[in-house]
This record gives sequence, structure tokens and C-alpha cells, in this order.
Amino acid sequence: MDATLPPLTPGTLYLVATPIGNLEDITLRALRVLRECDIVAAEDTRHSGQLLKHFGISRPLLSYFQFNEAKRSEEIIERLKRGEKVALVTDAGSPGISDPGERVVKAALAAGLRVETVPGSCALVAERPADG
Amino acid sequence: MDATLPPLTPGTLYLVATPIGNLEDITLRALRVLRECDIVAAEDTRHSGQLLKHFGISRPLLSYFQFNEAKRSEEIIERLKRGEKVALVTDAGSPGISDPGERVVKAALAAGLRVETVPGSCALVAERPADG
Repeated sequence: MDATLPPLTPGTLYLVATPIGNLEDITLRALRVLRECDIVAAEDTRHSGQLLKHFGISRPLLSYFQFNEAKRSEEIIERLKRGEKVALVTDAGSPGISDPGERVVKAALAAGLRVETVPGSCALVAERPADG
Repeated sequence: MDATLPPLTPGTLYLVATPIGNLEDITLRALRVLRECDIVAAEDTRHSGQLLKHFGISRPLLSYFQFNEAKRSEEIIERLKRGEKVALVTDAGSPGISDPGERVVKAALAAGLRVETVPGSCALVAERPADG
């Protein structure tokens, strides 16, 4: 499938949903974006590093969490302006739903940069009905 | 990855999220469930047949939509009771969010059968922020 797909768009911030509890709950597009981006901004670089390793992906990681969000947002915006492709992931689920992400997304949109969501698991709907 | 994964559980109804607009937005687990289930109950069998074909998957399809939900629910429950593994998909997104699915899920739970969600894209959170 990969052979026929267009490459990632330079200068784009990709909001990549990652698994909540089950490593198989990751989409083909999420894996491709993580494989092809220039850098992965992660809520917890150690946690996300293990996820990438599980799928045989090796990309540079940048920490992005509550207490460095302002500084890191600026850095990510600079990278996007230079044409880099940045993937933003959180420990689990979809960035910006109940995790960090809002600040850099707002900054990217304010700067006229491209933001693309890569949907997948999110806490809002991923509950198991048998537990409900 | 597949080699180390446990097989699907007999007598289980799998609610499988499918792509909304981008075929790459499907998870590894969704593909595995669709490949290994006994039958796929689909909102539109032609639509879902094309999805399966795209991924080289060939499983029997059963139509399940608004106007045959009651009858088909009974049939699905009988299949589950016989130990079949049934995947439920809609045209796009997560079954039961804004699509058919509620009736058979309630019937399965009422009968003490196992229901498992396979999360992925859902209309609730898959919007593109650049369009918002």
C-alpha cells in the first residue's frame, strides 16, 4: 500500500493517535506518519520511544508536556516553518482530547501552518461496553 | 506481530471501527479481527466488501442496517451463541456512535455474550482542526 501513497507534506504538524492499552490499536497511517516524520514530539519520550521501538521505528524524540509546553511550542513552530514534518503524540489516545497539544495546535494554526489529524483510539469512545 | 497474538475469542461480537474517508485510518487490530472473524455484519455489504477487498480480506458478509436490525440482531445472537466470532462494521467510523449497532450490542450483553470494541476513527473526534 505504501508505494502508492503520497509523501508527508513538509511543514505539517501531524496529531497522531496512539494505542490506549492495546498496541494493535494503531492505524496504518499513524505508523506511516511516525516512520516518515522528521521528529516526534511526545508527552513522555521514554513511553513513546518504546512504542516506536515495538514497531521498529527510529525517529528523534522531543519532549512536549505540561511544564515545557510554551517553550516547546515555539521550537516546534520554528521547525514547521523550516518545512519539517512534526508528529505529536501523547502517552495514549488522541492529542488534545484529554492530553497536552492544544497550545502548539493553536500556535500552528495562528501561524498559518498546516495541521493534520491522524485519528485512532480516543478515551471518549474507546471504552469497552462490557465494563459499562 | 500476528504470530504472537492470541486468537479471537469464540462467541464474541467485535465492534470494529473503519476508516472515515482515508483508507489508511484502520488499525492493525481491526484488520486482524476482519481477517479472523467468521462473518462480517455490515451496514452496507457492498461498501464494506470494497474495504475488505482493498486489504485482501475475504469473509462472508451479512447486511445489518436500520430496517432489518431487529431480525438480523436475532440471527447474530444465534451465531454468537454457537461460538462464532462476528465483526460488526458500519460504512465509516465506530459502530454505535452515530450508526446502527445499538440494538445488537444491547441484545448481546443481555444474553451474557462477550462484546469487544476495536477502537479507531470516530466522527466525534476525527475532524481536521484546519477546517474548524
